[in-house]
Amino acid sequence: MPTADRIWTAALVVIGDEILSGRTHDKNIAQVASWLQVQGIRLGEVRVVPDLEDRIVEAVNALRAAHDYLFTTGGIGPTHDDITVDAIAKALGVPVVVHPEARAMLERYYTGRGSALTDARLRMARVPQGAELIPNRMSGAPGIRIGNLFVMAGVPHITAGMLDALTGELEGGAPLLSETIGCWTAESEVADLLREAEKAHPAAQIGSYPFFREGKVGANFVVRSTDAGELRSCVDTLCDALASAGRDFTPGGI
Amino acid sequence: MPTADRIWTAALVVIGDEILSGRTHDKNIAQVASWLQVQGIRLGEVRVVPDLEDRIVEAVNALRAAHDYLFTTGGIGPTHDDITVDAIAKALGVPVVVHPEARAMLERYYTGRGSALTDARLRMARVPQGAELIPNRMSGAPGIRIGNLFVMAGVPHITAGMLDALTGELEGGAPLLSETIGCWTAESEVADLLREAEKAHPAAQIGSYPFFREGKVGANFVVRSTDAGELRSCVDTLCDALASAGRDFTPGGI
Repeated sequence: MPTADRIWTAALVVIGDEILSGRTHDKNIAQVASWLQVQGIRLGEVRVVPDLEDRIVEAVNALRAAHDYLFTTGGIGPTHDDITVDAIAKALGVPVVVHPEARAMLERYYTGRGSALTDARLRMARVPQGAELIPNRMSGAPGIRIGNLFVMAGVPHITAGMLDALTGELEGGAPLLSETIGCWTAESEVADLLREAEKAHPAAQIGSYPFFREGKVGANFVVRSTDAGELRSCVDTLCDALASAGRDFTPGGI
Repeated sequence: MPTADRIWTAALVVIGDEILSGRTHDKNIAQVASWLQVQGIRLGEVRVVPDLEDRIVEAVNALRAAHDYLFTTGGIGPTHDDITVDAIAKALGVPVVVHPEARAMLERYYTGRGSALTDARLRMARVPQGAELIPNRMSGAPGIRIGNLFVMAGVPHITAGMLDALTGELEGGAPLLSETIGCWTAESEVADLLREAEKAHPAAQIGSYPFFREGKVGANFVVRSTDAGELRSCVDTLCDALASAGRDFTPGGI
């Protein structure tokens, strides 16, 4: 049941040398961010940290205390560089154990494919003591849920499956609503009227996101509020002000 | 002059509600990461924080102390939600001043386009006291360099121009070299030999990055080292081990 007047926040720790080296372009930040919006939970911070236990522990402990929920992506596979489970257990001060249900899931998955549950694969059944599993229909290796922590895969389509399994499971507040107005203008031309429209609506925020396309400058103005009436009113004020200033604008954004 | 035995590190603070809302997919993490590699500087951490002064101050102060260099992207435009300069000045404990050269650059830019330097545009000439400018050929509004901080635009192609202006300007160490070997195998099948190859080469690391393509599982193994000989030797060990295990592999990655 959503609680309208409480803001729920989450943080995300992206674990991966491959992101920090520039080799892999992260897709999980945007994916987790969009999913959280729908759950009525605000993404308050993201940290990308290397595959180093101490650095993961530090980020996890700082963020799990500061937010309602903490998500991690990456480092839960079968290879030697997959150290997320050990780091999370260390952060929580609990031992790592083999989860019987995870073991059974992996056994079914691999024997069903004419293969065996090797020691390396068994690594994917290891969880911090006290954890529950997040189902993963894609590859048999589950995600992990313990306290307010959600430990997910790094491969984006597996992450997506785990988020899907969590949809509707987490308590959130009123979703942050947003409406976008696009305008072929330099944002500096309309900075004053943006500021005025926001000032007149304390329960709404306006973000201005400039772009250059087709050889022209433009900007999208994103109005956000958890209150539908306030959102509408702020959008109307902004559109009236743009019209009065002789600016063409495009509801829905450009 | 590169110093081979010293590791230089940098951190990045991405400032932007638009990233945390999922509305915009960040491109600057990968861009800054790749650029740093070439400068011989390792990206050690990234934080994405909202457009809130206290949160920016907190991240900037934590990371500028922990790394040789700190970069920020976002929030240096002309609108009310561009608060990066004020936050950085607060973090450093210095006032915000109008930089005469930045003012002159903006004046030239706008008058050259038959327009005027309005109050909103003049915001883009504000810098923390003591700052130098990072040239921006794209839009006239410069980036800011102060101490070990580099304050850059959020729009990726403008960020790119600022990075370009900084190329070769920062002291770094030996660049981290890497070589990739691709293999159509589940990484769990070769986890042991990856671990062995890494163990035999203390100055190299092996990352394993699984993927699913064309209906098959595969993985790229990325060997990294600052020492070219050690890199070569570790790659050779890994390739020999893959060949002995009867695995086809693709030098350069899949």
